[in-house]
Amino acid sequence: MSLDALDALATTRAIRRYRPDPIPEADLATILWHATRAPSGSNRQPARYLVLRDGPAATEAKALLGAAFREGWGAKRGAHGFDRGSGADPDSPKARAARAMQAYVDNIEHTPVVVLPCIVRWRAPHISEGASVYPACQNLLVAARALGYGGVLSMWHALVEDDLRRVLHIPDDAVIAGTITLGMPEGRHGPVRRLPLRDVVFEDTWGGPAGWAIDPPDTRFTRAGPPREA
Amino acid sequence: MSLDALDALATTRAIRRYRPDPIPEADLATILWHATRAPSGSNRQPARYLVLRDGPAATEAKALLGAAFREGWGAKRGAHGFDRGSGADPDSPKARAARAMQAYVDNIEHTPVVVLPCIVRWRAPHISEGASVYPACQNLLVAARALGYGGVLSMWHALVEDDLRRVLHIPDDAVIAGTITLGMPEGRHGPVRRLPLRDVVFEDTWGGPAGWAIDPPDTRFTRAGPPREA
Repeated sequence: MSLDALDALATTRAIRRYRPDPIPEADLATILWHATRAPSGSNRQPARYLVLRDGPAATEAKALLGAAFREGWGAKRGAHGFDRGSGADPDSPKARAARAMQAYVDNIEHTPVVVLPCIVRWRAPHISEGASVYPACQNLLVAARALGYGGVLSMWHALVEDDLRRVLHIPDDAVIAGTITLGMPEGRHGPVRRLPLRDVVFEDTWGGPAGWAIDPPDTRFTRAGPPREA
Repeated sequence: MSLDALDALATTRAIRRYRPDPIPEADLATILWHATRAPSGSNRQPARYLVLRDGPAATEAKALLGAAFREGWGAKRGAHGFDRGSGADPDSPKARAARAMQAYVDNIEHTPVVVLPCIVRWRAPHISEGASVYPACQNLLVAARALGYGGVLSMWHALVEDDLRRVLHIPDDAVIAGTITLGMPEGRHGPVRRLPLRDVVFEDTWGGPAGWAIDPPDTRFTRAGPPREA
């Protein structure tokens, strides 16, 4: 018995702190099987899932990813002013978010499982090719949540993509669509926070009010985008 | 009480035949709220959901979509040889798939709800922008499934994108990422069919066997891609 479906969708959030425990192979298989139930254009199924645990190539790839994630986060931390404005207060949400992200990138090498979802290209790049891999990434994260695991989809692999391709023997016609880190959550994690539905759901025309699109009472809200200079 | 989470992921398939009944607004709100729990890069939340029911612009947009879907399917039907080879036998899976798709595109105007998931661009097009909208599309379809509805994500809107933008007042910086049709399923629908896990899950290096990636006993399999000339 896993979670109720709607509860699973509502409570699947980015998890970036993991216990060191490995994920049992039977659970990994369950997670990936549910990922692959997601749809793809014409059911063409161009997505592939490269699982990195503790093999020799995985170890090398995790080191590359660790360096990339630390570089990516370092740049974002500065560009988005995580340490300025309200971020100067160590108890501020901004400062806490920055500490959590720093701990995440500092520990990529110790992440129990990294999955690189890839897509084998069948035509020129187009936004819609993402429709054949990112639904599966979301299924993967929701299935992990249903089994008590957590993870997050990141894009910082792009900083070392050429090295990853070499180490992992990824062919030229395949694109790395993301990096998913997975493990058993460590510690407490806050609720999912989003914009109010009235800001993102329109009816009949762009910006047209959808009066029925009402958030449930316990919804937690956020501003859009990463923190900015206060 | 909705479905078990893993069952919902496993049984959410493309549904293209709908009863004429509208979807109650409370259910639509629930579906869209769960869609918006999906992650986006930096929690930037660039996705917007344009809901088309029976308003004046929706009626015009559905007519445009109907023409586009019929044109798109007509071209694909020919290009992929749906009526040749085994497709010449009306009882063949290919012929049945073709009839179902033809009925779908012939009825776009009568689809209870059409949702156009859009993305407000914040930088140049890149595959990873899909990571900020297609996970939400999948959440939308899984939430619909949990409530007893069904739907499918299509891309044929691209054939009339300029007209849709005009009719629906979609701003220049927003991209239509797909077209989701939704309704209460009519009739019976077969199981989800996919490639075996061994074909899509690799470990340590590309093509590396993941011996633990075993499909459950009742898994139904498919060949990759649309039907080809036999």
